[in-house]
Amino acid sequence: MLKFSLLGVGRIGKMHAQNIAINPNCELEYVYDVNNPAAEKIAKEIDCKIAKSPEEAISSSNVDVVYIATATPTHIDYILQAANAGKAIFCEKPIDLDIKKVEACKKELEKYNVPVHIGFNRRFDPSHKSAKEAKDSGEIGKLEKIIITSRDPSPPGIDYLKDSGGMYRDMTIHDFDLMHYILGNDPIEKVFATGSILFDEDCKEINDMDTAMIVMRSRSGVLCHINNSRRAVYGYDQRVEIFGSKGMVISDNQTPSSLQKFTNKITKAQEPIHYFFIERYKEAYKIQLQVFIDNILNNKPTAVNFDDGRNALIVANGALESYQSGKFIKINY
Amino acid sequence: MLKFSLLGVGRIGKMHAQNIAINPNCELEYVYDVNNPAAEKIAKEIDCKIAKSPEEAISSSNVDVVYIATATPTHIDYILQAANAGKAIFCEKPIDLDIKKVEACKKELEKYNVPVHIGFNRRFDPSHKSAKEAKDSGEIGKLEKIIITSRDPSPPGIDYLKDSGGMYRDMTIHDFDLMHYILGNDPIEKVFATGSILFDEDCKEINDMDTAMIVMRSRSGVLCHINNSRRAVYGYDQRVEIFGSKGMVISDNQTPSSLQKFTNKITKAQEPIHYFFIERYKEAYKIQLQVFIDNILNNKPTAVNFDDGRNALIVANGALESYQSGKFIKINY
Amino acid sequence: MLKFSLLGVGRIGKMHAQNIAINPNCELEYVYDVNNPAAEKIAKEIDCKIAKSPEEAISSSNVDVVYIATATPTHIDYILQAANAGKAIFCEKPIDLDIKKVEACKKELEKYNVPVHIGFNRRFDPSHKSAKEAKDSGEIGKLEKIIITSRDPSPPGIDYLKDSGGMYRDMTIHDFDLMHYILGNDPIEKVFATGSILFDEDCKEINDMDTAMIVMRSRSGVLCHINNSRRAVYGYDQRVEIFGSKGMVISDNQTPSSLQKFTNKITKAQEPIHYFFIERYKEAYKIQLQVFIDNILNNKPTAVNFDDGRNALIVANGALESYQSGKFIKINY
Amino acid sequence: MLKFSLLGVGRIGKMHAQNIAINPNCELEYVYDVNNPAAEKIAKEIDCKIAKSPEEAISSSNVDVVYIATATPTHIDYILQAANAGKAIFCEKPIDLDIKKVEACKKELEKYNVPVHIGFNRRFDPSHKSAKEAKDSGEIGKLEKIIITSRDPSPPGIDYLKDSGGMYRDMTIHDFDLMHYILGNDPIEKVFATGSILFDEDCKEINDMDTAMIVMRSRSGVLCHINNSRRAVYGYDQRVEIFGSKGMVISDNQTPSSLQKFTNKITKAQEPIHYFFIERYKEAYKIQLQVFIDNILNNKPTAVNFDDGRNALIVANGALESYQSGKFIKINY
Repeated sequence: MLKFSLLGVGRIGKMHAQNIAINPNCELEYVYDVNNPAAEKIAKEIDCKIAKSPEEAISSSNVDVVYIATATPTHIDYILQAANAGKAIFCEKPIDLDIKKVEACKKELEKYNVPVHIGFNRRFDPSHKSAKEAKDSGEIGKLEKIIITSRDPSPPGIDYLKDSGGMYRDMTIHDFDLMHYILGNDPIEKVFATGSILFDEDCKEINDMDTAMIVMRSRSGVLCHINNSRRAVYGYDQRVEIFGSKGMVISDNQTPSSLQKFTNKITKAQEPIHYFFIERYKEAYKIQLQVFIDNILNNKPTAVNFDDGRNALIVANGALESYQSGKFIKINY
Repeated sequence: MLKFSLLGVGRIGKMHAQNIAINPNCELEYVYDVNNPAAEKIAKEIDCKIAKSPEEAISSSNVDVVYIATATPTHIDYILQAANAGKAIFCEKPIDLDIKKVEACKKELEKYNVPVHIGFNRRFDPSHKSAKEAKDSGEIGKLEKIIITSRDPSPPGIDYLKDSGGMYRDMTIHDFDLMHYILGNDPIEKVFATGSILFDEDCKEINDMDTAMIVMRSRSGVLCHINNSRRAVYGYDQRVEIFGSKGMVISDNQTPSSLQKFTNKITKAQEPIHYFFIERYKEAYKIQLQVFIDNILNNKPTAVNFDDGRNALIVANGALESYQSGKFIKINY
Repeated sequence: MLKFSLLGVGRIGKMHAQNIAINPNCELEYVYDVNNPAAEKIAKEIDCKIAKSPEEAISSSNVDVVYIATATPTHIDYILQAANAGKAIFCEKPIDLDIKKVEACKKELEKYNVPVHIGFNRRFDPSHKSAKEAKDSGEIGKLEKIIITSRDPSPPGIDYLKDSGGMYRDMTIHDFDLMHYILGNDPIEKVFATGSILFDEDCKEINDMDTAMIVMRSRSGVLCHINNSRRAVYGYDQRVEIFGSKGMVISDNQTPSSLQKFTNKITKAQEPIHYFFIERYKEAYKIQLQVFIDNILNNKPTAVNFDDGRNALIVANGALESYQSGKFIKINY
Repeated sequence: MLKFSLLGVGRIGKMHAQNIAINPNCELEYVYDVNNPAAEKIAKEIDCKIAKSPEEAISSSNVDVVYIATATPTHIDYILQAANAGKAIFCEKPIDLDIKKVEACKKELEKYNVPVHIGFNRRFDPSHKSAKEAKDSGEIGKLEKIIITSRDPSPPGIDYLKDSGGMYRDMTIHDFDLMHYILGNDPIEKVFATGSILFDEDCKEINDMDTAMIVMRSRSGVLCHINNSRRAVYGYDQRVEIFGSKGMVISDNQTPSSLQKFTNKITKAQEPIHYFFIERYKEAYKIQLQVFIDNILNNKPTAVNFDDGRNALIVANGALESYQSGKFIKINY
């Protein structure tokens, strides 16, 4: 039975709290949030303690795991505090927006022998995972192409965007990680990225983009495409296509129900797909937690490690450089 | 090169004329229709002769095949004339609405050694045929159930209905034949049928039904279901499901294009399915003609013979008896 | 916060125990099972008390709800004990296999004013429910047909079958209830049923059937079809098709993931559908529990009441009578 | 009634010959092919004359249309001969591999007032066309992204490849044209292209690629992606996705039949999609011919004109430059 301190109970932190609460292999000991009423609300629902400070939550001798779901700029600080306290660490993506800080953190972490898991939840989605496994098993032959479509239902607003690090480091970073996951030990060699501001005034104001397309080539020559949008009226569009010499697998979108409608205008019409990540990746988040716990309890390496977080950021930075230069940028991990 | 006389150029006859015209193995020599202007129009389009009488069309020494697409009450007369003239015969379904006349015709036909094909076009639909072949090949194991959904897009109107012989003999007869086709040499042993008048005033007026459901059991115990409607707003609904010990095959509906639409209300919405039989079974009609020609030219038995037409009518009559008596009726072929 | 006593922790009872445990609006106070080790195991997992007898579980003053998931023959006894103790009652289907006992129980229950919910879980499936709602909203116009396909993945074995009451009262009873649910206040007027023994030696031994087809007509003329099998190699086949004057809705099957495979043999191939009811109706069982709790807490009528259980049994009995007589049987509720 | 001379009766020319033969608005007067037996075979089947030289076919006073389906290097010569003879021209894609020759031809053509149609058949596919129309009608709002997947079933072999002009000018050129078609009057501003040799030894030998990915941005900021392969084991993969502010349309792949298979391994498995362009774009080729004829007979501009052919080549050249330089290349039409 692992005991958790959870830092941050915003939208995603709240979901983590509930998943921890219903998982029979762990217990939520502390919650902490700068917004104290939010922490109080969760503490009441889950019946756990409220830490007066992050330090209290992190260093309590009663706690095995520090679960970091706070704002990105705080991540590294909490990671290092937790490492110093000898706790296992689960940290939401991204580690940080600044690769230098990430490198420094990496170096610092080498002093400690603590497990670190970075929260790239999509790897744990049963459909994406089955697609990856079909590729690994040789079922589709030699890998040739990966295509990821990843569109949010609606733009997040200026408050979120201004500190987000921009499309590639905030949103596409999930897709870069998924590419790494599928590619396995065949790293991305080059990245080309472009983008447009087509609809979102907030993006325009901060000189970000709302629509993006990326092409990558792996060391072995596998071609990879990602396309992103900050808005898709039909829901949270999450598709992965893996193409090889003997076939193809597609992890398709999912609708809340399996209803189909037929009228004089349409046939086989399904509902809009799941609205957003909380709904779409509900199972993935639960499975991720279980895998994390299993690995900690069995002294096995975490499923998504610090380097995975670092590598995704490096490719995101490469994409940004490509966007600015118009060139096919070499990735140096 | 077979030479055809075509009797009847109504909706279905016109389509047959065009199929004959583009088939490289046959030629349309004569057309005949009680509605002479219709015959003239086709004759001009196809560049063929107009027979002044059915007799001329049937007995012309230049003609190999008599293709009967006239009103049902004329079928038997033309079949026997054609048989007497030694012609190969293609006759649209149903042979006749009166089983006694059909039996008499059958007996009479025994005097002649002419090939007769009854136009149950659905057997030649590539999807239905693949489903049947999957069953025959053992791919789905031992046959257990067959379910046919068969719905017209809109009711035909009182003029058609009053001489149609009623739902079972006019519309369901196609489905009875398809059941026979799929069952192969396992005949239908019992039939139960019911129906309702739910929307069509014309049906009500002539005491017919617009909606029907039928259940049958074959000699070996296979259970069969047919459901019919005279109206489906989304198009001509034609589905066949064959279920066995090792799996299932479904011959699904078909849309004119493969377009899918996604909005904030719907996803993966396709178009309405094909409007009616001319569009839906376009390929089936062409293939049927080719198979008919191949069989004639190679002295092989026709693919759908007189007994197939007779047997479908016998089951239709059983259905009607069941509808009237509320009993599970034994079929005596 | 409602306190529950759960009687019976077999396969379905165990699932109920877990759902009760994670529902924030209720608590599992007691479990009871004739198989004491099973009860102990659950009690340990959930951290609740073990009742030494059903009486203890039912009459404890600390308990608000008696949840009956024991063998069918015990249902009525426990219902009446619980009613006598003034408890709210949740009882798994069927109430009993003997309509006379059900009628007696109904009469007896009139003395008490306790809420009774019969566990027809399928009504709470989001897809089936959306289909029903589309019908109720008038979206598909006037109702004309309902078609339910309901096939188990594999036969249950002789031990289960011999006390099951036969296909119609054990398995089809779910589908009869679903028909009632969709039809609303348009009762079934007549039922025709047939069946076959096609593969299951156990069914043969006890003179039951493994494959069934049923046709019903409602008072307003709506035609209804159910087809059942005790085995479907591709999983637990659960489809509902509702057809009306303005369109159709289909509640289709569901696969564990949204993966599609493409090879040189197949395209768009999905996985087998959910294996059985625990997986397929996972959400439905949780929602059913929540709806039950909400109704109890708000003094509202239960969503599936005693009469719903009784009516489904009456139609099942009609089906059996039809199977034996080969006649279209009138239903007298 | 337009009279045609057809130059070239290879695979695609033969199909054109058949389409011309069955179209009621035109007649095949002459065929010509350097491979005389091939011409003789077609002439016999279709019952038309064999020209002894291209000149005879082109200049015959009896002929209205010159239909060019010969090897690419001959196109421009025949176009100009036909223009000089005052004939309407249908020319298969590409016009030529050398943009300088194309520009010279364009200039020369200005002297003549003859209609020229370039054979980009995909524009006439009913599904692709419906997708384009949904975009034009505003149904999906403001256009934001276009994604084209275009994969051949198997590589064409070294003989074809060595004169093909390479992936972009031979294969992707169809997709570039489709992009222009969908974009309408919003030209492509920049193109990035990459590629790999992953499986085809022939491609390797001639320094071409077998797998490609392209990203483009239009003047208005629309992002476009194309991905190509010379091999897809499941058939000729042809998908178009158009994404906008109010929704998305997808023109999906098509299978020969609508059969679905269900076993203990797979569900809803369809057949491999159409094998190649002759099958997949069968309707498109017929419609293209009809549209061409209608435009000629009604003195309307051709649906795909010389500039469409030229513009697709210009983008293909830009793609090649990008592939070689690793840069985002500006398109100068």
